[in-house]
Amino acid sequence: MGIRRAGRPRLHGMQRSGATPEEQILDAAAELFAARGYAGTSTRAIAETAGLRQPSLYYYFAGKQEILARLVRFLWQPALAYGRQVAAVDAAPDARLYALLSYDIEVLRSLPWNLGSLFFSPELRASEFSSLYEERFQLREVYRGFIRDGASSGVLGLDDPDFAADLLFGLTESVVDLHGGDHGKDPARWGIEVADSGLRLLAAADPSGARAAGLALRASLADSEEIGVSQRSSR
Amino acid sequence: MGIRRAGRPRLHGMQRSGATPEEQILDAAAELFAARGYAGTSTRAIAETAGLRQPSLYYYFAGKQEILARLVRFLWQPALAYGRQVAAVDAAPDARLYALLSYDIEVLRSLPWNLGSLFFSPELRASEFSSLYEERFQLREVYRGFIRDGASSGVLGLDDPDFAADLLFGLTESVVDLHGGDHGKDPARWGIEVADSGLRLLAAADPSGARAAGLALRASLADSEEIGVSQRSSR
Repeated sequence: MGIRRAGRPRLHGMQRSGATPEEQILDAAAELFAARGYAGTSTRAIAETAGLRQPSLYYYFAGKQEILARLVRFLWQPALAYGRQVAAVDAAPDARLYALLSYDIEVLRSLPWNLGSLFFSPELRASEFSSLYEERFQLREVYRGFIRDGASSGVLGLDDPDFAADLLFGLTESVVDLHGGDHGKDPARWGIEVADSGLRLLAAADPSGARAAGLALRASLADSEEIGVSQRSSR
Repeated sequence: MGIRRAGRPRLHGMQRSGATPEEQILDAAAELFAARGYAGTSTRAIAETAGLRQPSLYYYFAGKQEILARLVRFLWQPALAYGRQVAAVDAAPDARLYALLSYDIEVLRSLPWNLGSLFFSPELRASEFSSLYEERFQLREVYRGFIRDGASSGVLGLDDPDFAADLLFGLTESVVDLHGGDHGKDPARWGIEVADSGLRLLAAADPSGARAAGLALRASLADSEEIGVSQRSSR
């Protein structure tokens, strides 16, 4: 659904030109949250930055909280949906990991917003957001499952797979922050190179085999990739 | 200087029992910043939580900004000072990396505060804090230097050492966040295991050799480790 190029996930709501009011609101909010923090940003300021009147904002969102929730969801939901697809097909654990990891990073690097600052917003710890954090932990569980399987089947040479899974998960989250620059790599390339690095971190017995099998798995799931992502953003 | 056990860095100001007022203020501030954000925390609340009157707080700190600066410094200063020591001695790049990485992680995991939320405080981007961020970038440069040397000398099998350095740096910062739990490992063990993982991520040609040489280097710098850390916190 929608235009798709060269295996790159296309998130609706990521094109700034011709954006809908909803997308303009998300853009404006992301910019302001990053600059002033969530607490320091009013819905009035979001509406003004988006070029809308405040009542128009409330037509699309119940409030600031819902806007934050929508933004933060992009960090976990696409990868969680994809990880579940990957878990449902027949594949080796290292191939599954490669597919999920490269996809996850590609999506994170495709986000037009710098959401790094939202990861640790104290507001996200509030109970209204607990279901959001729940999704984050579910994604971590998907990674853990693949890594445990890989360790027990011997394709990953790990003594403590849960520890390695947390390191890997921390690595995935750290790539959201754009301050380090893009290193001249597009999101798809980021996906490949972080997955290569991640499989090395996980002591993969056959990193190039994992890459080949992981990319084949992604190709076989190409339709799911797209549908998974589009569903997420069109809600 | 100070008591030292089994290669563990001992940061003054980390013992909660018998803490000085200054340390109690840092403790209270870290707790409140994590819970409510920097913007949402007043010096009055910090003083109250520390069991002090507000004027007493101002005896120790010029204000909230200085408290934040003191806390955040713990994230980079000990490792930066140590990295410079490591760079000054004669050692192979992979050994230097192992020494710095294991030390950095050990210090980060020894911090009694959850400073993860402070990394991305929008307030830290303000110009008053630019020198703090400068130190962060200097630490990243030290890592990059070792990683470039390792790639050019062939001990690290990397095509793009600066990219790998940013991934590694992101990994180090992600271990500050304590939400993932400690996995039953003390800070020294965290240092060893993250350094092992990091050297794999960096495609080290001889990971166990890097470990042995890196630990030997740390042992030879044991005095510097301690002085470096103590100096930082006793200012």
